[in-house]
Amino acid sequence: MNPETFSPSEFSWTFDRGVARIALDRPERKNPLTFQSYAELRDTFRALVYARSVKAVVFGSQGGNFCSGGDVHDIIAPLTKMSMPELLDFTRMTGDLVKAMRGCPQPIIAAVDGVSVGAGAIIAMASDIRYATPEAKTAFLFNRVGLAGCDMGACAILPRIIGQGRASELLFFGRSFTAEEGKAWGYFNDVVPADRLESHAMDAARKLAAGPSFANGITKNQLNMEWDMSLDTAIEAEAQAQAICMQTRDFERAYRAFAAKEQPVFEGD
Amino acid sequence: MNPETFSPSEFSWTFDRGVARIALDRPERKNPLTFQSYAELRDTFRALVYARSVKAVVFGSQGGNFCSGGDVHDIIAPLTKMSMPELLDFTRMTGDLVKAMRGCPQPIIAAVDGVSVGAGAIIAMASDIRYATPEAKTAFLFNRVGLAGCDMGACAILPRIIGQGRASELLFFGRSFTAEEGKAWGYFNDVVPADRLESHAMDAARKLAAGPSFANGITKNQLNMEWDMSLDTAIEAEAQAQAICMQTRDFERAYRAFAAKEQPVFEGD
Amino acid sequence: MNPETFSPSEFSWTFDRGVARIALDRPERKNPLTFQSYAELRDTFRALVYARSVKAVVFGSQGGNFCSGGDVHDIIAPLTKMSMPELLDFTRMTGDLVKAMRGCPQPIIAAVDGVSVGAGAIIAMASDIRYATPEAKTAFLFNRVGLAGCDMGACAILPRIIGQGRASELLFFGRSFTAEEGKAWGYFNDVVPADRLESHAMDAARKLAAGPSFANGITKNQLNMEWDMSLDTAIEAEAQAQAICMQTRDFERAYRAFAAKEQPVFEGD
Repeated sequence: MNPETFSPSEFSWTFDRGVARIALDRPERKNPLTFQSYAELRDTFRALVYARSVKAVVFGSQGGNFCSGGDVHDIIAPLTKMSMPELLDFTRMTGDLVKAMRGCPQPIIAAVDGVSVGAGAIIAMASDIRYATPEAKTAFLFNRVGLAGCDMGACAILPRIIGQGRASELLFFGRSFTAEEGKAWGYFNDVVPADRLESHAMDAARKLAAGPSFANGITKNQLNMEWDMSLDTAIEAEAQAQAICMQTRDFERAYRAFAAKEQPVFEGD
Repeated sequence: MNPETFSPSEFSWTFDRGVARIALDRPERKNPLTFQSYAELRDTFRALVYARSVKAVVFGSQGGNFCSGGDVHDIIAPLTKMSMPELLDFTRMTGDLVKAMRGCPQPIIAAVDGVSVGAGAIIAMASDIRYATPEAKTAFLFNRVGLAGCDMGACAILPRIIGQGRASELLFFGRSFTAEEGKAWGYFNDVVPADRLESHAMDAARKLAAGPSFANGITKNQLNMEWDMSLDTAIEAEAQAQAICMQTRDFERAYRAFAAKEQPVFEGD
Repeated sequence: MNPETFSPSEFSWTFDRGVARIALDRPERKNPLTFQSYAELRDTFRALVYARSVKAVVFGSQGGNFCSGGDVHDIIAPLTKMSMPELLDFTRMTGDLVKAMRGCPQPIIAAVDGVSVGAGAIIAMASDIRYATPEAKTAFLFNRVGLAGCDMGACAILPRIIGQGRASELLFFGRSFTAEEGKAWGYFNDVVPADRLESHAMDAARKLAAGPSFANGITKNQLNMEWDMSLDTAIEAEAQAQAICMQTRDFERAYRAFAAKEQPVFEGD
């Protein structure tokens, strides 16, 4: 993948100074997901593993909304007619999107305005950092369409972000929550006015892109890997991972800049 | 177990329109637990696995209190005289109550008024959702009776609800906390006046009972199972679990209702 | 180790009525860590496993600051010149300090004033309970020196204290946070004025020391061990651990005191 020339068919993509911006782009329907957009998003995040020049990703909103989830006509209708192997192909594809988002080394910032429900809420949840506008309305609404709350990793990931009690309520009732609730719970990292959401998220992404991006990828990898390690094993894994980072040039750059009383300039190697 | 006719000897039981209500019932002593009530509660939650008509459970308060924990005269006194095998029989029985509460498919709502301490706090903690009155006073007070905080799963479950730092303080000091603290920490899902606690919990339970109860049982199962899975394994487990739910009639009911612009009527199959 | 006569060369140590107080002691440089102080701290916490008379530990501040982390000249400079085996020796030594802090049975209270950054933030994080002054300024700043956030267990431990979303932000940006933020997130258990920090922490430690210290050690052990156990396994592990505590004299002392309407006097056996 060449981020400069990449031109996906199912979502918008821009790339500038190390930061890729992705957004679903059917604002008239609040940016639903389709079979095609799931697959292309999955493939894109998988390709980012090898796209060294991409150092941070913003998953943005479009037309006042983030994502309305799986399209009722394009997705829900066909699902009601599928055989079990076909259904499993679908649920694995959607799960693979979350695996790919967690598996790429770039930190992902979700910039959430308006509606973020169903698989749309999952995309924000699977991101590393989440900003919202006061108008953000999030719902893990799977049980309201007759399904379980365990969609695309929600029963594993959501409790680690907001705690088991709050996650249980959201997943059993499918109720929506506000940006303020989300911030108090640690779901949203910050709430900013709608006209500043985009610049806030892009500024943060640029700050990440200017950081030690190889080391940031290791941070993300360890956050994933240590998920189910014992405490002692996690500490040994970090000893190894950090020793690797201590042999990067970025570490030396930081030391030299400090000694010279300058700001370090990181290059990601 | 027939929920219509079930008549336990150690606690009160009512059943109406899919919702079972359980409450300890010695209000003059703030509803302590006894060897007998532990065992009958454990057996009841185990039987709920097969009681399809029970779709949600409320564990309520009685006479202004939830539960004062193990009775000092009935439980603590005999424990001080037991052999190790007898002690382990007891701690396993109490642990089995928590296993049974987590193991039944029905979401459990704890409605906590007044005192909820020791094993009483554990029963609320092991529930899926917790509502409190402003008068609720919760304490994991085990260390104040000379014991460890690791009682009935507390060292595993409490940190996942309120975070490791807060849980450590509560378990090392045995201090009580207020309803407001509990809500800020994500322990209580909401705080409501005492005269509305019962109706608030019952309304929520009825909403759950009117939901896709098979899928809700899968949600609860996955919340338990994914506890110590790796991230990728959890996502695959959810792909399988959700594919199962996509073959339920409730999923089709939801789609048809949506297409007809009606509210879905779920039947739990 | 004899806590009465122990006289470390790299940090200050006091011991009184069951409570040991440790503090780094180069206040003119905000108490940085050196190779020597890492090693001596690690050895000290390891020795505490056998020091029964020490029942709680306070890790305090000195001269208005907690700890400024690895010294730039004494530690960072040499690290930039080391071979991989030497680097791994270092990262394992720092990780071993966290393992030793988690591995000793005594609850550790961090009393954090002023700067607590880098490995200084880790020492507070690895403690069981954290108090701060309004002036406390905490930063997991590893990525600002070109390293990954996975240092000394941070990617495993920090998410369990404050949630995965907040931890991700702190570890990717290395930004500092205030005492008030830390309290709202569950990182700090309480915030107290600087002139009361020391007495607040010592009072809490004395309360712990007056508690059932054998059982408190079991609580700490279970909090560590149940980290990556399944739910059912954790409950069985607690049944065994609590049965052990029920055969301590402290449990009987508590019962007798209760029956006599007195305060129990625990002795830790």
